[in-house]
Amino acid sequence: MNHSQLFRNIKGKRSFLCVGLDSEPDKIPSSLLKGKDPVFEFNRRIIDGTHKFTVAYKPNVAFYECNGSAGWETLEKTANYIKENYPEIFLIADAKRGDIGNTSKMYAKAFLEKMPFDAITVAPYMGEDSVTPFLSYPDKWVVLLALTSNKGASDFQYHNEDGIKLFERVLTVSQKWGNTDNLMYVVGATRADMLKEIRKIVPDHFLLVPGVGAQGGSLEEVVKYGMNSSCGLLVNSSRGIIFADSTDNFDKVAGEKAEEIQTEMEKYLMERNLI
Amino acid sequence: MNHSQLFRNIKGKRSFLCVGLDSEPDKIPSSLLKGKDPVFEFNRRIIDGTHKFTVAYKPNVAFYECNGSAGWETLEKTANYIKENYPEIFLIADAKRGDIGNTSKMYAKAFLEKMPFDAITVAPYMGEDSVTPFLSYPDKWVVLLALTSNKGASDFQYHNEDGIKLFERVLTVSQKWGNTDNLMYVVGATRADMLKEIRKIVPDHFLLVPGVGAQGGSLEEVVKYGMNSSCGLLVNSSRGIIFADSTDNFDKVAGEKAEEIQTEMEKYLMERNLI
Repeated sequence: MNHSQLFRNIKGKRSFLCVGLDSEPDKIPSSLLKGKDPVFEFNRRIIDGTHKFTVAYKPNVAFYECNGSAGWETLEKTANYIKENYPEIFLIADAKRGDIGNTSKMYAKAFLEKMPFDAITVAPYMGEDSVTPFLSYPDKWVVLLALTSNKGASDFQYHNEDGIKLFERVLTVSQKWGNTDNLMYVVGATRADMLKEIRKIVPDHFLLVPGVGAQGGSLEEVVKYGMNSSCGLLVNSSRGIIFADSTDNFDKVAGEKAEEIQTEMEKYLMERNLI
Repeated sequence: MNHSQLFRNIKGKRSFLCVGLDSEPDKIPSSLLKGKDPVFEFNRRIIDGTHKFTVAYKPNVAFYECNGSAGWETLEKTANYIKENYPEIFLIADAKRGDIGNTSKMYAKAFLEKMPFDAITVAPYMGEDSVTPFLSYPDKWVVLLALTSNKGASDFQYHNEDGIKLFERVLTVSQKWGNTDNLMYVVGATRADMLKEIRKIVPDHFLLVPGVGAQGGSLEEVVKYGMNSSCGLLVNSSRGIIFADSTDNFDKVAGEKAEEIQTEMEKYLMERNLI
């Protein structure tokens, strides 16, 4: 999927919502626990209940790996289920990988070749040759960590050389490795006004914004400072949607929560004359 | 395993060799390919052939993930095989994980609880709360990326704030999160003289040094600048040992290569009166 196709999907769904499938096994509704693969069944119903309002899903790989090889099977089944049933969905592996070239190549194979992910989140610490192997797949994307929304972000991401913070250097330098059709950035939303400065460095790239919803970020602020002429935003919500209800009605409630966000997103897209 | 036990094992084996199990499926000797799990069979024979000369094994997780959930099963079998047969071995998951706290907690569960790894490599970009969940397991370790040996290391790791490079900040700041019993650092060996400066910041921590052997680093230089009074070094070799021979004799040749390095290591340990 390229940049135009992603924007077209956003216009079609009137949404730039990404649903994070942080499907922690211990939080799955008890009604599912007697099944063979409760996490997959949970995901399947969440996906069926929310896909109309959603342009992207983002399984967080840690929540599958914690179940070992069985968890990886659940991840594979989830990715395949999405692509078989909702092929328009932009599918992101939230894996935060990154290693020397020959190793990143193997991670790329795992997520972009063996599984049908469109994109993978990558950590920038090891530099160019740790990122470019993921960029060699046509129509696949790297979502590079730039500014994250957690407390520890301040430990290193603001390390400042001559007025350039590390995350700004990541944004500047990495633009040479890819383009707006295969590279987007994770930009934390806890301080939405920082998006204004970030947009000066990356005006045209898509940004994946975590932390709206349960973690308290404001969608309105993110749109105000982050939206561009092709939307340029995927805004993620995980727990606020998938764990909104713990009864067997969880999929219906998740759909309602996703629709609430989609409705707000539709309003912003209309205000900007993008739909 | 704590710092003293690791040093005791080094003295017992007269070696500080870590063998990297970068067991790329495409490079497995053809004689194994008809078996049910060629990579596990390869690892098993490599381990049996090299364990006498080795204090640590380091499976590189990417080379298992590239086979999907089946690859994860191979990883689980490999980790269990090592701990069941050679419990004195220090077992490192080279996984380069790191995410927000609740996610790192799940990665920690995957590697330090569901699998019997003693340690996991972690990327520092997201800061303290991405690292500390791995440190909450008694006798388990984080191996934190500081200075890596790849070309891309220069893209960000040297980002310099007031004379402090990013990798130096990682070494300084992270020492508050753990101690010499649960935290060691990845320090690339392509420029061994940099170890001298690094030892000023972390005189007592163990360092995991990749890139000696096939990648051309000099063991003598690493020892000269990096060894401390409790050895303080694990030096890794991967391809130079495990892929030294492509016939069915590969395990014997791997053992010979490992013994060559162990013999050199023994000499350095004796020169320093550590054994």
